[in-house]
Amino acid sequence: MKLLEGAVDHGGSLGRARALFPDAPLPFVDLSTGINPHSYPLFDLPATSLSRLPEAGRARELTEIAARTYGAPSSANVVAAPGTQILLPCVASLARPGKVLVLGPTYAEHARAAAIAGHAVSEVNDFAALVEADLAIIVNPNNPDGRIIERDRLLALAAKLRAKGGLLVVDEAFMDVSPREHSLAGDVGQGGIVVLRSFGKFFGLAGVRLGFALSDTPTIERLEAQFGPWAVAGPALEYGIRALADIRWQDDMRASLANASVRLDALFGRFGVPVAGGTALFRYLSLPDAACLFSALGEGGILLRHFADRPAVLRAGLPGSENEWKRLESALAGWASRRDDGTREMAR
Amino acid sequence: MKLLEGAVDHGGSLGRARALFPDAPLPFVDLSTGINPHSYPLFDLPATSLSRLPEAGRARELTEIAARTYGAPSSANVVAAPGTQILLPCVASLARPGKVLVLGPTYAEHARAAAIAGHAVSEVNDFAALVEADLAIIVNPNNPDGRIIERDRLLALAAKLRAKGGLLVVDEAFMDVSPREHSLAGDVGQGGIVVLRSFGKFFGLAGVRLGFALSDTPTIERLEAQFGPWAVAGPALEYGIRALADIRWQDDMRASLANASVRLDALFGRFGVPVAGGTALFRYLSLPDAACLFSALGEGGILLRHFADRPAVLRAGLPGSENEWKRLESALAGWASRRDDGTREMAR
Repeated sequence: MKLLEGAVDHGGSLGRARALFPDAPLPFVDLSTGINPHSYPLFDLPATSLSRLPEAGRARELTEIAARTYGAPSSANVVAAPGTQILLPCVASLARPGKVLVLGPTYAEHARAAAIAGHAVSEVNDFAALVEADLAIIVNPNNPDGRIIERDRLLALAAKLRAKGGLLVVDEAFMDVSPREHSLAGDVGQGGIVVLRSFGKFFGLAGVRLGFALSDTPTIERLEAQFGPWAVAGPALEYGIRALADIRWQDDMRASLANASVRLDALFGRFGVPVAGGTALFRYLSLPDAACLFSALGEGGILLRHFADRPAVLRAGLPGSENEWKRLESALAGWASRRDDGTREMAR
Repeated sequence: MKLLEGAVDHGGSLGRARALFPDAPLPFVDLSTGINPHSYPLFDLPATSLSRLPEAGRARELTEIAARTYGAPSSANVVAAPGTQILLPCVASLARPGKVLVLGPTYAEHARAAAIAGHAVSEVNDFAALVEADLAIIVNPNNPDGRIIERDRLLALAAKLRAKGGLLVVDEAFMDVSPREHSLAGDVGQGGIVVLRSFGKFFGLAGVRLGFALSDTPTIERLEAQFGPWAVAGPALEYGIRALADIRWQDDMRASLANASVRLDALFGRFGVPVAGGTALFRYLSLPDAACLFSALGEGGILLRHFADRPAVLRAGLPGSENEWKRLESALAGWASRRDDGTREMAR
């Protein structure tokens, strides 16, 4: 992964964590991603899910269940892929090389993938500016700040882009835990819209690599042709089918994640760390001494996500076990007391 | 998979088999692929291989081991992907849209993927004609007939293509069991060559989805950038690392597959079915009444691979268990005795 190394960090690498904080107590409490620490219950996979080619009928079941759970018009509006990541350059290639505008700051891979697809890519901070694009990309809710664009505004933008042959891509990687009434999953039949959904984050199964694109049927057929048969591995098919159909688990998990995120905000609040946004899978911290907090927690074996180009913000995923909550609490307490000592020192 | 359904059959679908032969005794003996029926021993995966993002360090280990086992100059000449299939349009896109020549008849997905990448694609039957291509594609050994092009001839072609800015793609999906001295894995540093290797066939783990492209470093970096981080799923990383490093298993398996393919030829020979080629993972049958044999065996629950456009040839994978060998033998015996009765009938 030479090109990528040291280039863009996305969190989630314990190797990188060990290099950054060689003296930290192990194991790391990895809060550097937005991946649910309470994964969907693991089960024994049939041996044939590894040994045999993934069965076309099983792949069809998966897109049918995904269509139902995500609220797409039908399975003809859904293509499954080995992770959302690998979809990005393919989706960017749906538009002829032109002007791509990404509503930022956001997940860096969109701009990178669009550039690979031959587009001229800019990041804009103003939603209204997106209308100038041939291909507009919005992460909704946004990563890392959790900003939500309402469905009505998205549909109005999609209509304007569509009228000139443009395309709106909405990455709903964290929509499972968010006000789902703003999802465009049900609107993709109109054309000119691609919605991306990520399986691994909400279900806590990032290793299986499973993601979906939702769009109008001709677009889905084009993407399917590109991925060819057997795009989704056997284990991903089995977990995808079972977990996406398990609405009860999903509803319970949504409630439990919402509680955990409230608890996390309260914990940060107790130590004077301001939470400026986020979703129920991660919180967005904005403070002038973010770099100090990142280092102090890192040395305590608590890994947050920092952003090389934005030193005053951090992202924090949810702790899983009670032990992880305790380790976070005590690391925060240590940092806060050193900070307060420093403040007193300066005031003397 | 709408676009693909009914379009190209590649074998390996039990759903399709049930539809074709609804009255066949179950379970099917699936000889419709070239996948090793004796898969690498399954082992328990760490839960984190499913729950966590695939670790960059582990992905690096995989490409290092793959480079060693396949004989590439270094891991900088190897990119791992979720299956060879998904690499095809990416590899075809390495060349600007131009003239693609595929040495045929062969695996149909190459022509399809090249067309998706915007090339004008033709199949040629003459190796010498490939020099006219911007991008030439050879499956070596060939699927389904096992034809092998010698390394010297391939290198001479690669040099000619390279001199005019062209590219040679050699799909070595079945090279693990074949005269490996004709692999170009060690030559990819010269530039203008992409070698594709498939993990799932020889190791009998088609469901994990793992494939490799071997090429010069700039090409590998370009492909890596396109796939992004986490292209290979956690289970594929674990199986890839362990199985590719297990040279002992590989050597033993090569010997055992060679024996099995000799045994299969003898069995077909006993019933007057001429074996015209193949590799140690599949045999290539050429007979005027191939369609009858396909149907007769299919009704007996034995699944061969037939080719819609070549009614006089079939491909047969290796039976796994002794029970599968016995079922094949008795189905062949039944077919042969009906054939001989028919012949006598006609002679009367």
